Amino acid sequence: MGDQKIYRASTTAPVNIAVIKYWGKRDPSLNLPTNSSLSVTLSQSDLRTHTTASCSSTFEGPDSLLLNNAPQSLSTPRSLACLKSLRALRSELEDADTSLPKLSTYPLRLASTNNFPTAAGLASSAAGFAALVRAIADLYELQQSPTELSLIARQGSGSACRSLLGGYVAWDHGSREDGLDSRARLVAPKSHWPDMKALILVVSAAKKGVSSTAGMQTTVQTSSLFQTRAKEVVPKRMAEMEKAIKARDFETFAKVTMRESNSFHATCLDTDPPIFYLNDVSRAAIKAVEEMNEKVGRTIAAYTFDAGPNAVIYYQEPDEDAVLKTFLPILRQKEGWGRIETKIDGPGPASSQVVEALEAGVSRVILTSVGEGPISVQEHLIDDKGKPVGT
Amino acid sequence: MGDQKIYRASTTAPVNIAVIKYWGKRDPSLNLPTNSSLSVTLSQSDLRTHTTASCSSTFEGPDSLLLNNAPQSLSTPRSLACLKSLRALRSELEDADTSLPKLSTYPLRLASTNNFPTAAGLASSAAGFAALVRAIADLYELQQSPTELSLIARQGSGSACRSLLGGYVAWDHGSREDGLDSRARLVAPKSHWPDMKALILVVSAAKKGVSSTAGMQTTVQTSSLFQTRAKEVVPKRMAEMEKAIKARDFETFAKVTMRESNSFHATCLDTDPPIFYLNDVSRAAIKAVEEMNEKVGRTIAAYTFDAGPNAVIYYQEPDEDAVLKTFLPILRQKEGWGRIETKIDGPGPASSQVVEALEAGVSRVILTSVGEGPISVQEHLIDDKGKPVGT
Repeated sequence: MGDQKIYRASTTAPVNIAVIKYWGKRDPSLNLPTNSSLSVTLSQSDLRTHTTASCSSTFEGPDSLLLNNAPQSLSTPRSLACLKSLRALRSELEDADTSLPKLSTYPLRLASTNNFPTAAGLASSAAGFAALVRAIADLYELQQSPTELSLIARQGSGSACRSLLGGYVAWDHGSREDGLDSRARLVAPKSHWPDMKALILVVSAAKKGVSSTAGMQTTVQTSSLFQTRAKEVVPKRMAEMEKAIKARDFETFAKVTMRESNSFHATCLDTDPPIFYLNDVSRAAIKAVEEMNEKVGRTIAAYTFDAGPNAVIYYQEPDEDAVLKTFLPILRQKEGWGRIETKIDGPGPASSQVVEALEAGVSRVILTSVGEGPISVQEHLIDDKGKPVGT
Repeated sequence: MGDQKIYRASTTAPVNIAVIKYWGKRDPSLNLPTNSSLSVTLSQSDLRTHTTASCSSTFEGPDSLLLNNAPQSLSTPRSLACLKSLRALRSELEDADTSLPKLSTYPLRLASTNNFPTAAGLASSAAGFAALVRAIADLYELQQSPTELSLIARQGSGSACRSLLGGYVAWDHGSREDGLDSRARLVAPKSHWPDMKALILVVSAAKKGVSSTAGMQTTVQTSSLFQTRAKEVVPKRMAEMEKAIKARDFETFAKVTMRESNSFHATCLDTDPPIFYLNDVSRAAIKAVEEMNEKVGRTIAAYTFDAGPNAVIYYQEPDEDAVLKTFLPILRQKEGWGRIETKIDGPGPASSQVVEALEAGVSRVILTSVGEGPISVQEHLIDDKGKPVGT
C-alpha cells in the first residue's frame, strides 16, 4: 500500500492595478511583454483570490479546478504551462531527495474563490494565477523566491507575475528569448509607503469590450503610435515612477499614473479597428478627479483605467477626507462604502454633468489600499477527504 | 467731391471635412501646421457661408462684420492679418494703375450668413474665413489664384485655406518660416470623383469641448506620441491618400480616413490633461459603420470626426442604399433627410446597443456630397445704400 495521504496547501493572493501599463507582447506564447510595467498590489482584505491546492495518489486524474464552485478548464496552454513548470521544480526536489513523496506525479485538485465579482473587470486573472502558482508551490514545498515563481505565473497571465509580491512591484520586460529575465521585482514594500489608498469605481458596462489578450495583439500589429510608446515613452516613465515611489513623491506618482493611463488608451484608440475601454462614465470620473485636484490646489488623486471602464483612483491616506467629500455625496447610495463615516456631506467640487454621469453609471465602489503579497492560510477549500468544502 | 460709390462683391464658400487631420501648429501666429492635411470640400447646397464684402469712402470706420445679423469683432489678430494682407494686394494694384479707386483705403462692411447652425461644430470658421477672403478679393478685383489666396485665409483659420478650392484639397505644411509654402493645393477636382457622398450625424453634445486652437497647442506641448504622428505617420498617409484619390480607390480612402481620425483622437487622449471629443454616441456611430461594412462584406463607408462628437460618414453614391438602410431606420425622426425616399426600411445591420445610443444622441442629420470651391453670387447681404439686407 503506497502513500494515501491527501496533501493540501492554501493561500490568498492579491489583485494589482498597474500605474505603468502592460499592453503588447513580444512573445505571445511565453507572455513576454513589449514594455516593462509597474503596479500597486492591493489589500487582500478587499480583493483577493483564495486557492487551495491539493494532491494525492488516491485522486483520479486529470487535474481539476473549481472556481467559485464551478469547474474550470485546466487544459488551456497557459494553465498547462504553469502546472508543468511547477511539477518540474517539484520533480527536481524529489530527484535530489528520494525520501520525498512523489507529489509531482499525483493528480491535482484545486479550488478557488474570489471575494469580489469575477466579471467586474477587476484583474481577477492576475490574482487567480498568482494564487494558483503560490498554492501549488507551497503544496510542493518549493524554495523558489516570489521573483522566481513570477516567471511561472507570468505564463498563466502576464500581470499575474506582479501579484506574487506586495507593495510596489515592477515587471521587467527582459530581453532573453526564453523569458527568464522577464519577471516581477520588488520596487518597494508596502511598509515603505503604506499611505497609498485606492477608490475603485466599478462601472456597469453594457457589454464587455475586446479582451485584453486579443486587443493588445491587434494594437501591436496595427497601431502606428504603439512602438513609440513601448520603446520611448514607457522606459522613461518606468524610471520616473520608480524614483517617485522611492521618494514617496505623490505628485510625480500621480502625474505619471494619469499620463500612462491616457497613453495606453490612446494606443487602443489608434488600433484598427479602434478599441474603446473608456466610456462616458469613465470620462466623468477623470473630470471629477481633475476638478477635485484643481479645487484643492494640489494633485491629491490620480486616476487609472485598465482594459475596461472601471476607474481606480489612487490617493494618500491624509487626503482621504477630500477624496470622500467629492465622491461619497455623489455615490452614497452605491454598495461598497463599508464603515466609512456617512456624515461626510457635499456637494464636492464635481460639476453637475459629472455628478449625473457618475450617479447613473457607477454600480458599486471599493475602498482599498496598498497591500501585501500572497499569504499562506490554514482555511482550506478542499477538505481532508479531498472534497471541495461546501458542496 | 470724391468717389461716393458703394462697391460690393458676394460669394458663397464651402465647409471642408478633413480625412488627414490638421492638429498642431509649428507657428501659432502664422497658423503654420506641424503636418500636412487633406480634405473633401462639401457641397454648398447643404453647408455654406454666404458673405458680402462692401466698401465705400462714405462708410464710417472702423471695418465691421455682421454674422447672421449679429455684430462680430474684426479686431482679432487673425481677422486683422487677413484684412491687412488683402488691402496690401489691392494697394499694389492701385499703385500700378492710379486710375483705380483707392478701395484699400475705404472702410469695409462685411455681412455673412450660414445656412447651418453655427454652433453645431461643422467647421464654420473654415467656411467663414474662406468666404471673407474670397469676397474681399473679388471686391478688390485681385487676380491671385485660390492657392495664393489660401495663404491669407490660412492666417484667419488654418483649415479655411482648404475651403478656397473644391473637390479634394491638400494643405501642404511647408517648411519656410514665413509660411509662403504652407497653402492649399488641388489634389483632384470634384469632377474627377463626383460620387463621394457624406452623411453627417450631428451629435447633441451637452457641452462644447476644448477649443481646437487651445487643444492642439496643449497636444503639441504634452503628448509624447504627437511627434511620431506628425513626423512619421501623417506623411505616409498623405501619400497613400493622394494616390487613393487619384485612383478613385474608395477602399484605401476609407481605411486611411478611419485610421487617421482615430490617430488624431488618440493624440488628443494622450494630451495632459486629456482631451475627449468622441463620446458614447460617436463610438456608436463608429460601431454602426464597422457593423455595416462587415455585413455588406466590403468597406462601403468611412467615419471621421473633427474636434467634436459629430460623425461624418463618407461613402460612394452607388452604395447610398446600403448606407441609408443602416441609418435611416434608426434616425428617421431626425431633421435633415430632405427628399430621401422614406420607404427605405430596416432594421439595418446595427446592433441594439448602437441603435439606442444613436437614437438618443443624434440631433439631426445632413446628407451632402463633394462640392465646388467658392462661388461668386449676385445676391448681396448689403444693399446698394450700404445697409445690411433684412435689418
